[in-house]
Amino acid sequence: KMLRRVLCTVLFVGALPSLAEASQGHISVVLLGATGDLAKKYLWQGLFRLYMDQVSNGHSFTFHGAALTALEPGQRLMFDVLKKLACPPDEPPNRCAVLKDQFLKLSQYHQLKTAENYTALSREIETLLRQEGLKEAGRIFYFSVPPFAYTEIARHINSSCRPPPGAWLRVVLEKPFGHDLESAQQLAAELTSFFREEEMYRVDHYLGKQAVAHILPFRDQNRQFLDPIWNRHHVERVEIVLKETVDAKGRTSFYEQYGVIRDVLQNHLTEALMFLTMELPANVSKAEEVLQCKLQAFQSLRGLEKNSAVLGQYQAYASQVQEELQKAQDYISTTPTFAGVLIHSDSLRWEGVPFLLTSGKALDERVGYVRVLFKNRAYCTQRETLRDAGHSQCKAKQIIFYIGHGALNTPAVLVSRNLFKPVMPEGGWREAVGLSDLHVFGQPLSDYYVYSPVKERDAYSVLISNIYHGRKDFFITTENLLASWGFWTPLLESIAHQPLRLYPGGVENQHLLDFEMASGEVAFTVAELVELLNPSRAMPSDYKSIQSRFRQNPLVSAWSEELISQLASDIEETAHRTVARSGQFHLALSGGSSPVVLFQRLARHHYAFPWEHTHIWLVDERCVPLTDTESNFFSLHKHLLQNVRVPYFNIHPMPVHLNQRLCVEEDRGTELYAKEIVALVANASFDLVLLGVGTDGHTASLFPQSENGLEGAQAVVLTESPVKPHQRMSLSLPLLNKARQVFVLVLGKGKHDIFTLLSRVGHQPRKWPVSGVSPSSGQLVWYVDYEALFG
Amino acid sequence: KMLRRVLCTVLFVGALPSLAEASQGHISVVLLGATGDLAKKYLWQGLFRLYMDQVSNGHSFTFHGAALTALEPGQRLMFDVLKKLACPPDEPPNRCAVLKDQFLKLSQYHQLKTAENYTALSREIETLLRQEGLKEAGRIFYFSVPPFAYTEIARHINSSCRPPPGAWLRVVLEKPFGHDLESAQQLAAELTSFFREEEMYRVDHYLGKQAVAHILPFRDQNRQFLDPIWNRHHVERVEIVLKETVDAKGRTSFYEQYGVIRDVLQNHLTEALMFLTMELPANVSKAEEVLQCKLQAFQSLRGLEKNSAVLGQYQAYASQVQEELQKAQDYISTTPTFAGVLIHSDSLRWEGVPFLLTSGKALDERVGYVRVLFKNRAYCTQRETLRDAGHSQCKAKQIIFYIGHGALNTPAVLVSRNLFKPVMPEGGWREAVGLSDLHVFGQPLSDYYVYSPVKERDAYSVLISNIYHGRKDFFITTENLLASWGFWTPLLESIAHQPLRLYPGGVENQHLLDFEMASGEVAFTVAELVELLNPSRAMPSDYKSIQSRFRQNPLVSAWSEELISQLASDIEETAHRTVARSGQFHLALSGGSSPVVLFQRLARHHYAFPWEHTHIWLVDERCVPLTDTESNFFSLHKHLLQNVRVPYFNIHPMPVHLNQRLCVEEDRGTELYAKEIVALVANASFDLVLLGVGTDGHTASLFPQSENGLEGAQAVVLTESPVKPHQRMSLSLPLLNKARQVFVLVLGKGKHDIFTLLSRVGHQPRKWPVSGVSPSSGQLVWYVDYEALFG
Repeated sequence: KMLRRVLCTVLFVGALPSLAEASQGHISVVLLGATGDLAKKYLWQGLFRLYMDQVSNGHSFTFHGAALTALEPGQRLMFDVLKKLACPPDEPPNRCAVLKDQFLKLSQYHQLKTAENYTALSREIETLLRQEGLKEAGRIFYFSVPPFAYTEIARHINSSCRPPPGAWLRVVLEKPFGHDLESAQQLAAELTSFFREEEMYRVDHYLGKQAVAHILPFRDQNRQFLDPIWNRHHVERVEIVLKETVDAKGRTSFYEQYGVIRDVLQNHLTEALMFLTMELPANVSKAEEVLQCKLQAFQSLRGLEKNSAVLGQYQAYASQVQEELQKAQDYISTTPTFAGVLIHSDSLRWEGVPFLLTSGKALDERVGYVRVLFKNRAYCTQRETLRDAGHSQCKAKQIIFYIGHGALNTPAVLVSRNLFKPVMPEGGWREAVGLSDLHVFGQPLSDYYVYSPVKERDAYSVLISNIYHGRKDFFITTENLLASWGFWTPLLESIAHQPLRLYPGGVENQHLLDFEMASGEVAFTVAELVELLNPSRAMPSDYKSIQSRFRQNPLVSAWSEELISQLASDIEETAHRTVARSGQFHLALSGGSSPVVLFQRLARHHYAFPWEHTHIWLVDERCVPLTDTESNFFSLHKHLLQNVRVPYFNIHPMPVHLNQRLCVEEDRGTELYAKEIVALVANASFDLVLLGVGTDGHTASLFPQSENGLEGAQAVVLTESPVKPHQRMSLSLPLLNKARQVFVLVLGKGKHDIFTLLSRVGHQPRKWPVSGVSPSSGQLVWYVDYEALFG
Repeated sequence: KMLRRVLCTVLFVGALPSLAEASQGHISVVLLGATGDLAKKYLWQGLFRLYMDQVSNGHSFTFHGAALTALEPGQRLMFDVLKKLACPPDEPPNRCAVLKDQFLKLSQYHQLKTAENYTALSREIETLLRQEGLKEAGRIFYFSVPPFAYTEIARHINSSCRPPPGAWLRVVLEKPFGHDLESAQQLAAELTSFFREEEMYRVDHYLGKQAVAHILPFRDQNRQFLDPIWNRHHVERVEIVLKETVDAKGRTSFYEQYGVIRDVLQNHLTEALMFLTMELPANVSKAEEVLQCKLQAFQSLRGLEKNSAVLGQYQAYASQVQEELQKAQDYISTTPTFAGVLIHSDSLRWEGVPFLLTSGKALDERVGYVRVLFKNRAYCTQRETLRDAGHSQCKAKQIIFYIGHGALNTPAVLVSRNLFKPVMPEGGWREAVGLSDLHVFGQPLSDYYVYSPVKERDAYSVLISNIYHGRKDFFITTENLLASWGFWTPLLESIAHQPLRLYPGGVENQHLLDFEMASGEVAFTVAELVELLNPSRAMPSDYKSIQSRFRQNPLVSAWSEELISQLASDIEETAHRTVARSGQFHLALSGGSSPVVLFQRLARHHYAFPWEHTHIWLVDERCVPLTDTESNFFSLHKHLLQNVRVPYFNIHPMPVHLNQRLCVEEDRGTELYAKEIVALVANASFDLVLLGVGTDGHTASLFPQSENGLEGAQAVVLTESPVKPHQRMSLSLPLLNKARQVFVLVLGKGKHDIFTLLSRVGHQPRKWPVSGVSPSSGQLVWYVDYEALFG
């Protein structure tokens, strides 16, 4: 009945389309959580904007606010919100007043709680449409509710409220979408059981921010200028920043669970990062093409490590948490409210370019921006004072997507005048004027071409319009979401007990949160001792390694990351010392998974390693082709050799593959390798051998009860592994014991038992081959992480 | 008699040392060219300064001005100069007046022309000393004469004017020391036949500039701060600059022969470069240690190519030359008056850091400086306006050795306050005050620690003092000189016919001389067509390649550098196309010297080459171990593979070395390689084969009349070369002709005859194997340089 009255009004006004014109059908918008904060602040306004924009474009609408509240009070609450809807400045006041009146009449409140409620809503919509003779185009369900309510609502919609065949369903979801990869996968799996991928619109409201939404179109429309420079040869660094002045007061119950990385970096800043780094699809408005390129860009990201981030917490946070969450006085929160993260992409385009993502609460200003700084490759012969920004290649060159607030206080795109005059879509963006006395990013504003949107649009109104238009490229697909969590989760885990720098907040932070990059890591620039928030632990300090003795030999122990870093440094030191003495360094490396982190550490952090004088040997090899992913050499190559400069002649893979067959005795691969060792390594005594230990006590590929290699004259032997691939080639124990230095690396809880056992047994190589490692005139050092040490 | 009178005066004054105190002996200084410009302007003043400083330090002096002019007029000319000697401001006027009087009395003019003149001078000195009972400490001969006079004078000194045994001889030489490596070697050889190395003091007056002379001591005294940052990880770029406002007017007879590179870069700026880049010796004041480190630094410099430099000439220069040298109106000078040169060192410390050396006449200001700019590795969370230079790591970090003139108008050492407070020698340098409103290198002077010398000393007086003290580290040794010419000569030769950019001079140059780096080369940033000075040539333009046909196939021809650059680009393009099609690119490369430049070009300029998908095969190999410098693979590895990232598995050296022996038939190396090809290359059809041509018409290692490889089914063969090493392994002609693309590279005059012959012969592989190259279903392209094409 209500709808009928409204439609009459519409016909009466005359300026609005007749029913006959509304041939594209009817759209029902259901806003779940219609009286909540987000709805009040943005969503109803966005829906009103949608109505104003689309009222004469062929669709008819009804708007259904819904909540758990009963009908009467719910209605009252909702209409209090609707009455306050504002008319945007670019809309004629008369038209807006009429449309607002209509919008109120097209809007209705529903209590949606039980399955019956949903069925009733669906029936109501169908009845009304039948009465009005309207075809149903689709239904939009906007979830503005806490995530724990998602599953229930989704089930109801799916079972009781789907539109009839031929009409579409769009469900709009608001973050958080989980708090790590596992929980996100779980939530996604549940949703997927109710909705098809194309039905789901996951909101990241940053994708509705005009400056962020314009990154891809900008790259597309300026291909001619960007193609040659949008790469590691020209880009010096990229900064993606969201600074807030507010703190988490009043929101700590949410914030304490999430923290700044989950709240801002994993979603908003990561999406901006993807728009910058992804390869450009041929058609940037095709959601599927954009998604594929984005997923590829995710794959190129280098994994984050603990030292990829600096973390802080504003000083008042602890007491806010204690107060709001009724925690004890000695409760220590380890939730970061500030983070600076260094990200690298290993794609050919971006290799080596630092991407810095920064966000925090209680900072000195509110501002958001994406800044691409180009390298200065020029020398300007003319003296500084005579240079002009438009031509001088010596002034900074940058492109900035200014998201909002800050000095400019408007979304904007800035391009240094010495770069190029960008192509900007006419009607959408215009050159900004009258801001020229400002200074941004080290330069007067007059050094830039500055564009701002013709109509400044709130992110939610942009997104609601895109939901209406089915522009899925403005939303986060399941794959995209999981890729992002897959990227961030290892960091979140590794920093769970990381110390936080306390900061006072506001301008008093001074340089306390400045940070610096070195060797692929970041650290605060101002050193500090007292203000670290170091959670107490039963274990020895994270940040020191223990020096002790094990089996009469030195033992180095620490948490695994510190242990690996210590081991890498010790190897480099041995290498330098050995090269200084003999001109070359013979290093024999084991296969397996433990050394992989070591290889990566050596490749990424040890630029001064004397690789050009190092010979790389294998301790053992599986009998598979070298290019097989199971090959020890393949892993060594992938994680180390491909990234450093060891001369080809100095690389000595084991000859497991001869005459197109694997480890056949008569091909004499073991003899070949032994001869190579004798020919190149003085006294066949390696300078350094890196070994591991198996849970069965094996080392190299020397297994318990092995017939070969535990004793005797053979230097290189074929052995049998109890696990696949069974056939192996290995250096023999007698050869290993000729080494000048042997490091044994033991990592992980799984090694605790064998490690404990080894502390008790003597020299029994037939039972536990590693117990036979005892360099006759060299040194043996054990590197054991706390997990293996303490279980 | 004169000396006697002087010595009496000395005794009479009393404030001066008695003869007994002058126990260290007597020094005779002979200034050859005593009435010339340099002597007038700097040298006499420097000698007077020396006298003032050293008069009471134990030596007695006499000063002998000498020239070709006869005694009478010479004496008059010289004493006119001496009378004008100035008293430095830091000297008490009374003392100075007395000392000047003495200095004049200790100075004498001599006509030195013939051998007799020299003998007479020597005898005179000996007589005087005998009369005064003085021991001779040594003789200094300062050559302030044109270089053509050097040999004659050197011969006379050596034969007739050496001091007696026990006393030293020091001859001081002024540049130019040759105009290229050959002439410098010749001059050096002549001088070496008269003087021992330790007797020669070659002046580079920049080494007397206080800021330049302080580079090494600064590095030494600030090791604690510089050790971690004085390397490629922290230094972004280095600029070594000498800008002049004057032009060459009045000096074109000299300048036209030398130009700015020989005049300024080869000596002054290169010496500053060496002080910056050399490893620090343990003792920086030991000349021999400094020299060794410097020579090592020279060896690490990457060779310069034509495009390592941008060159200019001020517009008025041509008419000045025409006028002063009486040249015809159409005379075109190719002498550069401006140069910007990009230099790279391949040392581990500096790899990748650009060193920009710039100098020119008729520029907008007079200034000299050495500027080390550090990378900004920081992100500053606080907004810009709240940062202060002393702490913010986001402001530029630099160290500047300010040589003089310019805005500061004094020698100075500047260190950014956010770097460190440098250690400066007390007494020698002091913090400068009262300059704070200046802006230098993008920052207010208050952002730096600024030090200037306590006593500003003219370069010549510094050098004369160092000659007196025998400090050879302030002078250029023969080895140093030749190393520098060895470095610069290839550039000078390659740019001899390079076009010059004309510039108006002064502030009107605007951005015309700004230049930019890209892929290891430099180019002016402002493009220009009309103002290039392009010397006319009988040959086709240097800057375009000819496209034509040869033996029914496409022919690309150009000067060798352009040809190589074209070939490299064509290879890269083929690689990209092939990888896009099939996922991998099989490239077979030839040995020999011609491809070396190609390899270097690929390694240095083709960063986007899809190396990770490229397989590298050898076309032929010499039967020597792969690590032998004669091995084709060794050369390929050194010039290409070591510098790019080809996966280890994709590198396929020829198996010439099996079972510890070379190319033995029964080791079946050829079969092994053939099998590898069949296993990996589809249809055994290489995507691209690069061949060369020998003067006898051989290609690959297929020689005329070869029994193997010219026909038949064998894919890989052993062959015999007429030159050593005789044994070779080679792909066969039938296999080569299966390739999808074959490029034949022909470089140099030496190939002109065979190339001409090939244009006339048909398919005669037994006589000229290369004539049998004819891919059955692929494309053949000839890359031939103008020297091979036109002879």
